[in-house]
Amino acid sequence: MKRHNFSAGPCILPQEVLLKSSEAVMDFNGSGLSLIEISHRSKGFVDVMEKARSLALELLGLEGKGYKALFLQGGASMQFLMVTLNLLEKKAGYLNTGTWSENAIKEARIFGDIFEVASSKDKKHSYIPKGYEIPKDYDYFHCTSNNTIFGTQIKKFPNCPIPMVCDMSSDIFSRQLDFSKFDLIYAGAQKNMGPAGTTLVVVKEEILGKVSRNIPSIMDYNVHINKSSMYNTPPVFAVYTSMLTLEWLKNLGGIKGVEIENDKKATLMYSEIDLNPLFNGYTTKEDRSNMNATFTLANEDLKETFDTMCQEAGIEGLNGHRSVGGYRASMYNALSLDSVKALVEVMSELESKA
Amino acid sequence: MKRHNFSAGPCILPQEVLLKSSEAVMDFNGSGLSLIEISHRSKGFVDVMEKARSLALELLGLEGKGYKALFLQGGASMQFLMVTLNLLEKKAGYLNTGTWSENAIKEARIFGDIFEVASSKDKKHSYIPKGYEIPKDYDYFHCTSNNTIFGTQIKKFPNCPIPMVCDMSSDIFSRQLDFSKFDLIYAGAQKNMGPAGTTLVVVKEEILGKVSRNIPSIMDYNVHINKSSMYNTPPVFAVYTSMLTLEWLKNLGGIKGVEIENDKKATLMYSEIDLNPLFNGYTTKEDRSNMNATFTLANEDLKETFDTMCQEAGIEGLNGHRSVGGYRASMYNALSLDSVKALVEVMSELESKA
Repeated sequence: MKRHNFSAGPCILPQEVLLKSSEAVMDFNGSGLSLIEISHRSKGFVDVMEKARSLALELLGLEGKGYKALFLQGGASMQFLMVTLNLLEKKAGYLNTGTWSENAIKEARIFGDIFEVASSKDKKHSYIPKGYEIPKDYDYFHCTSNNTIFGTQIKKFPNCPIPMVCDMSSDIFSRQLDFSKFDLIYAGAQKNMGPAGTTLVVVKEEILGKVSRNIPSIMDYNVHINKSSMYNTPPVFAVYTSMLTLEWLKNLGGIKGVEIENDKKATLMYSEIDLNPLFNGYTTKEDRSNMNATFTLANEDLKETFDTMCQEAGIEGLNGHRSVGGYRASMYNALSLDSVKALVEVMSELESKA
Repeated sequence: MKRHNFSAGPCILPQEVLLKSSEAVMDFNGSGLSLIEISHRSKGFVDVMEKARSLALELLGLEGKGYKALFLQGGASMQFLMVTLNLLEKKAGYLNTGTWSENAIKEARIFGDIFEVASSKDKKHSYIPKGYEIPKDYDYFHCTSNNTIFGTQIKKFPNCPIPMVCDMSSDIFSRQLDFSKFDLIYAGAQKNMGPAGTTLVVVKEEILGKVSRNIPSIMDYNVHINKSSMYNTPPVFAVYTSMLTLEWLKNLGGIKGVEIENDKKATLMYSEIDLNPLFNGYTTKEDRSNMNATFTLANEDLKETFDTMCQEAGIEGLNGHRSVGGYRASMYNALSLDSVKALVEVMSELESKA
């Protein structure tokens, strides 16, 4: 039976990527050796790293604009710390849109004065704050583009008078944006880019080197830039698989191409949530995420029936995050419209049964 | 043609591990989903993480002795920093046996007074210092068990009156030691354990929580311990493949079993270096590494001939590190005695030709 993988991350990846990546574990480019047993300094792997880095910049439209792309380790949680060590001299402003923003704020507070420029905490992060001011004398402004847990997404980014840092872990490469508005973008690979184990950092070089602290080498973006993202042994499998996913995306017409598909999926999903009286959306409509649709059953008594129907239809990973409850349908780039159709069908079947 | 992979790391892994790992990228445990697209919180993956952690302790003989095993990200270079943040209050002692020790010292110096208790720098790290004293008032003592670049290995560890920290990246699981002498052991996976992208940390819990600094969460061993090594999304592929390698090792008779094979390989290799007049060993005999044999040609004019002969015999990854030159035969756990025989044959063939 075909599985419909709605996991929030790690999540579905393109089948052709999985196939190539699986093959490379046995034989990398016909070398007779595995991808994971060759030197990361060999020409074969250096080419992979360089291709991944240049594809990332190309797809974001940031080539030749003073940015560098890095593939690091440690996930977004490591970036909470690296951003702070590299950019925070005295104070910074953070937009609090949920759990991940709060974690970023918590880590930054160890090293300076962190101000919440706005927060959606008053309504359990079911919306995106708007109309806030970003003070000019902060070192930088930090926001989270998409809230995977609550299912909100920033649709319009502020005009930012200071460097703008954005955690795009759960929606990078999913929609067209003017990425040059951002000075630093980071994203754990395990949503739209590849397997867990690597994190993309895209940084405008001119914002670096301005803090007075002695940054540990492994935490220093400039150290990684100077070593072409090979300061130490990179996570070869995760970088290679990310490169394959970026190639797949490019062949699909890049972000522009995939955005059309993502819009179709989200429209179908949210139409069902709105029209079907058995389900309620969790977030404010205008701030709904195209990646993670969160919803609850109007009548909890139907839970067992609905869960069984989903299971029978091969639908996986639909449980909401424990802090929100209910359901969450994650519709990342590699999820097909057919999978959303399958879920919507189950939802309307439940309606006709009830 | 069979390849003989002498790479220094990432390096050769058991063929059966590569096969299982490659299959899991397409279908994990018959689930119909890939290992890299399922939730890391799913039972399937939680079991993998727990098995990897307990196998590590079991193989090192550290079960029930107050130790915890973690699979983190960032490589040994990240551990240079984490060790410091978690253990350094004022001063610590480091044994300088080469490049990796020096990197560890450099990073630790940002946070306190670091003393070299002994150094082999005077003779370009071709030996292991002995007979040094470790002051009782240091916070900890740090050493590097095996020097991958120069090819030296500590055969007898000091009696240490303070917590002993050891970077075992390049020889963990290769030889029997009383591992309970150490309070913290770390090792990047990419030599004897798995693919690049995860790092094993084995730490005695009682040494933690004693420094006064506010440790960032992602850097705090206690945070990772409390979250069962899942504080954030782990590098699933690297952890799974490491688990498979540890299973393979256990089936081989554990460290005791593989040590017999490693001794055979090293004895054969060094006998040839010593008996063949065309080659010179780089290090002091008593400190020779069983993992990395470093040697040079007595007559550099033979380089092209030797390199071609190696290539024709399917021998890969034999180049010495750029800071030492010459050759380096890395003989990690998964390298077969046959591969060493193939290399030794080429070396003696060169002798008979010359």
